[in-house]
Amino acid sequence: MSDSNDTPPIQQNVAVGYWGANENPKVNHIISHIRNIGYEFIVLPVSRSSFSRVLFESTPEDEETKQVFLRNMEEWRAGIPFSREELCLQSAESLEVAVGLTSPWIDLDSTDSRIRTNSEIALRQEFAWAIYLGIGTVMIHPPKSEFCNYARTVWSIINGTGHPSVWMQLPLTLDSDEPRKKETGSWEQWTKFRTLCSHDTRLGIALYITADLPSEKVLERWIAEPVRAVIIPTDIFLINAKGYPVLSKKHQSLVRSFLKLGVNFVIRDSKTDREENDSTVDIYMQYIRYMNRSGPELNEREKFATGYQDYLQSPLQPLMDNLEYSIYETFEKDRVKYILYEQAVHRALLDRVPSDSDEITVIVVAGAGRGPLVTRSLKAAEKANRKVRVYAVEKNPNAFVTLVNTISLQNMKAQVWDDNVTIAFSDIRRWNAPEKADILVSELLGSFGDNELSPECLDGAQKFLKPDGISIPSSYTAFIAPLSSAKLFAEAAMHRDWEMPYVVMFHACTQLASPKSVWTFEHPNRLLTVDEQGNPITNYHNVRYSKVTFDLAENGILHGFAGYFDCVLYKDIKMSIHPERHSTGMFSWFPIFFPLKEPIHLPRETCIEAHFWRLTSQSKVWYEWAVDCSISTIHENVPVNVSVIHNPNGRSYWIGC
Amino acid sequence: MSDSNDTPPIQQNVAVGYWGANENPKVNHIISHIRNIGYEFIVLPVSRSSFSRVLFESTPEDEETKQVFLRNMEEWRAGIPFSREELCLQSAESLEVAVGLTSPWIDLDSTDSRIRTNSEIALRQEFAWAIYLGIGTVMIHPPKSEFCNYARTVWSIINGTGHPSVWMQLPLTLDSDEPRKKETGSWEQWTKFRTLCSHDTRLGIALYITADLPSEKVLERWIAEPVRAVIIPTDIFLINAKGYPVLSKKHQSLVRSFLKLGVNFVIRDSKTDREENDSTVDIYMQYIRYMNRSGPELNEREKFATGYQDYLQSPLQPLMDNLEYSIYETFEKDRVKYILYEQAVHRALLDRVPSDSDEITVIVVAGAGRGPLVTRSLKAAEKANRKVRVYAVEKNPNAFVTLVNTISLQNMKAQVWDDNVTIAFSDIRRWNAPEKADILVSELLGSFGDNELSPECLDGAQKFLKPDGISIPSSYTAFIAPLSSAKLFAEAAMHRDWEMPYVVMFHACTQLASPKSVWTFEHPNRLLTVDEQGNPITNYHNVRYSKVTFDLAENGILHGFAGYFDCVLYKDIKMSIHPERHSTGMFSWFPIFFPLKEPIHLPRETCIEAHFWRLTSQSKVWYEWAVDCSISTIHENVPVNVSVIHNPNGRSYWIGC
Repeated sequence: MSDSNDTPPIQQNVAVGYWGANENPKVNHIISHIRNIGYEFIVLPVSRSSFSRVLFESTPEDEETKQVFLRNMEEWRAGIPFSREELCLQSAESLEVAVGLTSPWIDLDSTDSRIRTNSEIALRQEFAWAIYLGIGTVMIHPPKSEFCNYARTVWSIINGTGHPSVWMQLPLTLDSDEPRKKETGSWEQWTKFRTLCSHDTRLGIALYITADLPSEKVLERWIAEPVRAVIIPTDIFLINAKGYPVLSKKHQSLVRSFLKLGVNFVIRDSKTDREENDSTVDIYMQYIRYMNRSGPELNEREKFATGYQDYLQSPLQPLMDNLEYSIYETFEKDRVKYILYEQAVHRALLDRVPSDSDEITVIVVAGAGRGPLVTRSLKAAEKANRKVRVYAVEKNPNAFVTLVNTISLQNMKAQVWDDNVTIAFSDIRRWNAPEKADILVSELLGSFGDNELSPECLDGAQKFLKPDGISIPSSYTAFIAPLSSAKLFAEAAMHRDWEMPYVVMFHACTQLASPKSVWTFEHPNRLLTVDEQGNPITNYHNVRYSKVTFDLAENGILHGFAGYFDCVLYKDIKMSIHPERHSTGMFSWFPIFFPLKEPIHLPRETCIEAHFWRLTSQSKVWYEWAVDCSISTIHENVPVNVSVIHNPNGRSYWIGC
Repeated sequence: MSDSNDTPPIQQNVAVGYWGANENPKVNHIISHIRNIGYEFIVLPVSRSSFSRVLFESTPEDEETKQVFLRNMEEWRAGIPFSREELCLQSAESLEVAVGLTSPWIDLDSTDSRIRTNSEIALRQEFAWAIYLGIGTVMIHPPKSEFCNYARTVWSIINGTGHPSVWMQLPLTLDSDEPRKKETGSWEQWTKFRTLCSHDTRLGIALYITADLPSEKVLERWIAEPVRAVIIPTDIFLINAKGYPVLSKKHQSLVRSFLKLGVNFVIRDSKTDREENDSTVDIYMQYIRYMNRSGPELNEREKFATGYQDYLQSPLQPLMDNLEYSIYETFEKDRVKYILYEQAVHRALLDRVPSDSDEITVIVVAGAGRGPLVTRSLKAAEKANRKVRVYAVEKNPNAFVTLVNTISLQNMKAQVWDDNVTIAFSDIRRWNAPEKADILVSELLGSFGDNELSPECLDGAQKFLKPDGISIPSSYTAFIAPLSSAKLFAEAAMHRDWEMPYVVMFHACTQLASPKSVWTFEHPNRLLTVDEQGNPITNYHNVRYSKVTFDLAENGILHGFAGYFDCVLYKDIKMSIHPERHSTGMFSWFPIFFPLKEPIHLPRETCIEAHFWRLTSQSKVWYEWAVDCSISTIHENVPVNVSVIHNPNGRSYWIGC
């Protein structure tokens, strides 16, 4: 569960832009035309190709001319403004819809120091001009094979100017004969570039879709990156039977993935000689809009998740805080979950009491909230034709008020079957039970299973469970999977806390391997050692430690771990948020995310060894986590990287008990 | 140059301790005996082996006994204190000389969770007891093959307790048949352990010297680690002809290295049955003390460096700040440097003026300070039998006062040779020269050559140099080398600044490869483009960028880069702090250290690609640096790690000009 009271960000319709990267002098005219036909924005070069003169590439041979030439260069370097003819973006009119594009001839990693220096000055001048005009986004060119100085310059500009948003063009595939380089080369350049720039969140991607697409796995990686715009060149369109341009199935699927992420789209006309009033350019925009409208319908879970994608929430602390009405309201709507509980109670009653018996089964609902599990338990009893006496225990004084009303109604109906319900206002661990229970029903699980202290609560309730009593749930298991997501890393950076898990609906994320289990809790705990009052003497039996290894074939970047749970309610009645067997339609839990302080680069064939701890003191429970990566060569295991241990002593995050 | 006014830390004599790790009940007696025979401290176990009962290893079969057994365990876990019989260190008497030793049976990475949990409680109890007694240092046992949970527990204790100093025992070589594991396995365990513990500076090493020694290269690595104590077991001693115990030559050399580092020594008696008043144990202590006294005499440079080893200093900012009297005083003592300058001026005069000529050579000393280069220039002229007119220009008003006095004396003497000296109070870049110079002499170099803005100053002075004039120095080159040093990393951590270079005398450091050059400055700069006043129009010509690669055979950890310079004063008269050709006896410069924010693990056969920039704006000069590491496999270059770009825009460190 997570606190759904936070306001989620609002999803927008797709914004489609037009790539107007040409030297046409009538810029204002183009802008208004493009706007008229329905584009939201336009990409336009900041300056014209004539500005490339500032590279001062060829030095004259003759000594005197050379001196003049060098002096001209120095004077330009000292700060000569653009001439009007050199500028493409000129007046500030309509420029709120413009994205500035820097010049393609700028070469920051030339071996010639003069070209490097002048390129840097030119790039800064273009940025300065865009910022002066109030253009919020500047698009830059893809990195060349060497790009360290380019990365330094771009990061310096981002740090030093009025915080523009920078989109770096990156082709989806590289032009290379080596299949690996062609497929992943662009992503590798990107991941090095952004690491040099300290994962600065102002640096995003404008992904240039190529006709050739890489494998599904490589496409997935891009989903986990901060793609701000997708550039669609018109020459990747095919012509269908009716003569209209359409995208291939694979390209369509890719476009849909990015539409779901709410990124911008840019149509880049591959025909450079088209008349400006040629209406062909509308068709591509219309096509993208059509795809956005015609996406598959959202299922229940997707509807519930809308707006919460990649939105980090602090996990609930239901033991320390009292939940609000609206949270109960939201989660009670999850029919799938409550049907599973009803089935579990039903099966347990059938197993426990012979069909012809008059025996009354005592059911205790621990943490009854506003009463949904009471209702479901009574329904199960009715269906099973078994007599029950139900105790509903709740510690939240506010929920208790609603519970009293619910139960009054239930009791009136219950007369019919001799069943009755007693309510108690108490923390389950301190409840003075009037009789021992046959069945203890609870819904205390968090996204990671035990992270809302279900083990501690149920240990405390065990004293009033009969020796052969049943707990529903009877066990739950936590799972982790290595996760790549620049988006979640950036979100955690905004929270300035990498030492706590977050509840989050994964979206722009790539899971690098299937989840693996870390630990399990079983109830009742037959090995529990208790004091005279029946309470556990210590909580050390709820400490867990697990080392889990993941072998990766491909390279990647690790930002943290996804967490899930599997739960056995009763025998084969199971409930799960494990992505490979998620209970269909259940929406009560988003997964959990354990971030890493520093992203870790994973070469191919890395073995990730994840260490997870669940630790306790007298008053709190917390997690710690660390990761140790190595690659196996023929002879040995080569350590690649080891992280620090996160959240030592629960210093940044803990759950009070 | 560095600011020698900071007070350096004081070096201490060697402290030798005795390993009293036995179960002898008369602890106070042993302590006073050991102190009486001259040991400074003693290592003693916190508890006795009987305390190992708390592992509760074997559970009774019989159900009732089992319940009692488990209840006893839970009660101990809930917090039962030590019994008196379980403790070795008991009263606080004389305990200021004790180092506590934790129990060897503690096993934090057992596959049995009960042993893990109880081991953690036991270790915490031992630490708590040591802290209660006021024992400042606790020694812990070496890691086993798995140690993540051990690392977590130790770091948790360090973070949570009264900040004790922890010494982790580590054998110099591991007991293994694999040569590589035997040699470097222990270091690899350590480097992973301390990374998990976030490079916490409270965690140090007690290095256990084994009879087998690893190669010289592996020994060097340990020098770069935070070794707090060296444990010498007595069975590595040989018996010499006279029947006395002595160490092998190689062991002696190792001990000397650590004596230089000022670490503690611990004698561990390999005979466990020795009588406590057996005087043999004195011999080993005496031997270490003898080695400490009989080390080779310090040379001039070492004497000067005493107390400055691994002590980080901010580089001087001579252009922005005025140096103090004492700094001039210190650096003027460097005879080697001034002899080289005198030779350079002498050679330049011989080359420039025929022996029979009456021509007067104009020498300008830029930044004359208190006058040493004036004196040396006049001496050179006398030796060369050439006439000179000297201008001494100085911007520091305080040094100028001393300069006036020096020059008055010189002028009196100078009458003899017709030479004379004129002094001017001015920044050399703004000096109104009465005539053009033949020779411009300056000593503006920093540890990295150009880092005290010699290029900018000499560019500004070039306008009064004759077209064929000579600059002494005529060129200088900066060098970098990858450096491993937990000590320097820890020092930078204390300064909380990894984005600035530090001037430092390297000591506990390992240079991972030979230095390579990054860039060169030449004077006069024949390509300088100047304005009407003869001043450079911009400073872009002093921008530098260099990519340097280092191929490493062995694994290691990278903490930053060492910086040095080579300088050509005139033709073959050179001056250098490059470690492979350091000008003998010259002490004016310590090297410079460019730290990394995060240490980088280097697998074997890593290629380190270092990127260094020298950047300028109108008012300042700064460096930026980044590193990109990869390993070459058969098929491709596998990226291992890339750092962030350090000090973007000079945000943390810059030199004002």
